[in-house]
Amino acid sequence: MREIEKAIGIDIGGTKTAVAAVDGDGRMHASSHFETASKRGFSTCVSEVNEHVRRVLNEAKWAEDDLCGIGIGCAGPVNPARGTIHNPYTLPGWDNADIITPLQQAFRVPVRLENDADAAVVGESEFGAGCSVSPLIMVTIGTGIGGAVLVDGKLYRGVNGEHPELGHIPVTADGPECYCGIRGCWESIASGAAIGLAARAFGMADSYAVFAAAQNNPNAAATIQAAVSATAKATWTLLHTFLPHRIILGGGIGENYFELFADAMRQQISRATQIPKGNVEILKARLGNAAGVIGAAALAFQNSEVLSKIP
Amino acid sequence: MREIEKAIGIDIGGTKTAVAAVDGDGRMHASSHFETASKRGFSTCVSEVNEHVRRVLNEAKWAEDDLCGIGIGCAGPVNPARGTIHNPYTLPGWDNADIITPLQQAFRVPVRLENDADAAVVGESEFGAGCSVSPLIMVTIGTGIGGAVLVDGKLYRGVNGEHPELGHIPVTADGPECYCGIRGCWESIASGAAIGLAARAFGMADSYAVFAAAQNNPNAAATIQAAVSATAKATWTLLHTFLPHRIILGGGIGENYFELFADAMRQQISRATQIPKGNVEILKARLGNAAGVIGAAALAFQNSEVLSKIP
Repeated sequence: MREIEKAIGIDIGGTKTAVAAVDGDGRMHASSHFETASKRGFSTCVSEVNEHVRRVLNEAKWAEDDLCGIGIGCAGPVNPARGTIHNPYTLPGWDNADIITPLQQAFRVPVRLENDADAAVVGESEFGAGCSVSPLIMVTIGTGIGGAVLVDGKLYRGVNGEHPELGHIPVTADGPECYCGIRGCWESIASGAAIGLAARAFGMADSYAVFAAAQNNPNAAATIQAAVSATAKATWTLLHTFLPHRIILGGGIGENYFELFADAMRQQISRATQIPKGNVEILKARLGNAAGVIGAAALAFQNSEVLSKIP
Repeated sequence: MREIEKAIGIDIGGTKTAVAAVDGDGRMHASSHFETASKRGFSTCVSEVNEHVRRVLNEAKWAEDDLCGIGIGCAGPVNPARGTIHNPYTLPGWDNADIITPLQQAFRVPVRLENDADAAVVGESEFGAGCSVSPLIMVTIGTGIGGAVLVDGKLYRGVNGEHPELGHIPVTADGPECYCGIRGCWESIASGAAIGLAARAFGMADSYAVFAAAQNNPNAAATIQAAVSATAKATWTLLHTFLPHRIILGGGIGENYFELFADAMRQQISRATQIPKGNVEILKARLGNAAGVIGAAALAFQNSEVLSKIP
């Protein structure tokens, strides 16, 4: 019987941190989570991460020595080469925070940090809707809109090794103002946060209420239509920039309303004349709720990529 | 004295084909050109290409045996892996036209074919405004708008190995209809052809007249302003998708009015909050009129890339 590889995946979000024991087939053997509450201070959070790693190892009945590595997907910006988190917006108090060194010291295995969207595309590529197509784009529509691109199995990296900011593709001139610096970017119209903000103007509580009322309430219908149109426009941009073989749509909204968004995206493909459109496809993410931790663990299995050395 | 490498660069456009003898330092030793007139039939044109290759070899006093290869940049779409040209729009009659085989048979050296924008970015990278920064984007604003991306020295390739179609990034919802399938793409507003089309509506002959009159004529000023705004919007898209270290602006319009466009592009960089903007720069193309043939020759010097074998 072959020895299956074992890794720990850690998914650090603004609200929740999840930790899981994941094997080389992408199967989760144990998982755990806690509220990130980054304001408690970075070292307190790191201690809690360590404690949860030990907890899932214990639950999975894995020894520390069995691990091939630890992968971390974190709400960006992060610096994968230095192993540091720089996210004062989503993770207040964590700026230039070195997450690699304490985990390496505690578990003496290689530790790899990437932006959470990058972890997600690696996870879908290894264990989900990706397989070996290239270029592969993963778009997550949830509270925000994130994205990542894999080319020949490697993460696309921009200047300084940083990752694309696909949520801030411009889609309309007269949209809401975004923290990115312009009005009317994709995220400012089609994200859960944007739909929720629009909802409050016509007396609805959040994006869930808007989707639920879209059949009957004209305001809700218009808001969803704007989100779908923005996604179609951004898709046109992705088709003519990265020219992907496949776009995987994930995230809470992207998965729950997959057909709604995918239909509009496919219409863009079919009207395009300058791309090999017969070879471009839109797929739903397969890893669901576990995408974060499985993607994070997948980073540890990808040994060819940037991976910190054991200290 | 070191032996300097020698190559032939061939730049095939819809109107003109240029052939040059270029050395490994990017210096042109001889050049020649003729009207492409693709309708004459592919084999007639190939014969003329061969004749001009012999002519420049003769003028440069280079022997066929001295050549390390032949590089061809051609108005796309082209298939670099198969070495075929598929361009019924710009090169009527040339569809699935194999340009590699006849040149290999005639000169018995490796021959490489790429889209002309891809050849241009390789040329600027090797001999112009590119050096070793990554990612490097080359945008050409001329009759049309083209673009190409170099990542760690290699051409970014989309599905089927095809190249991005940066000219068809959407910039406004209410622009002119484009052959790409939407209204208001970058090329439909900011290309020489688009400016010329707009010009005729207010009685001017072409884009040259519009640029010349932009200081005094309100219609001309508005048309140029629309082109500059479209370029700014497309730049925002490039910044948040490919996240380049450097954008090189070339092409007739891009070079003649470089500061006008570059100012607007730099304003986009300075307002962006989600990219490492201190490390992103806009530079003017350096190879000028010879960019096509020098870029094509640069393909032949890049031996690590796809390069057809000697038959």
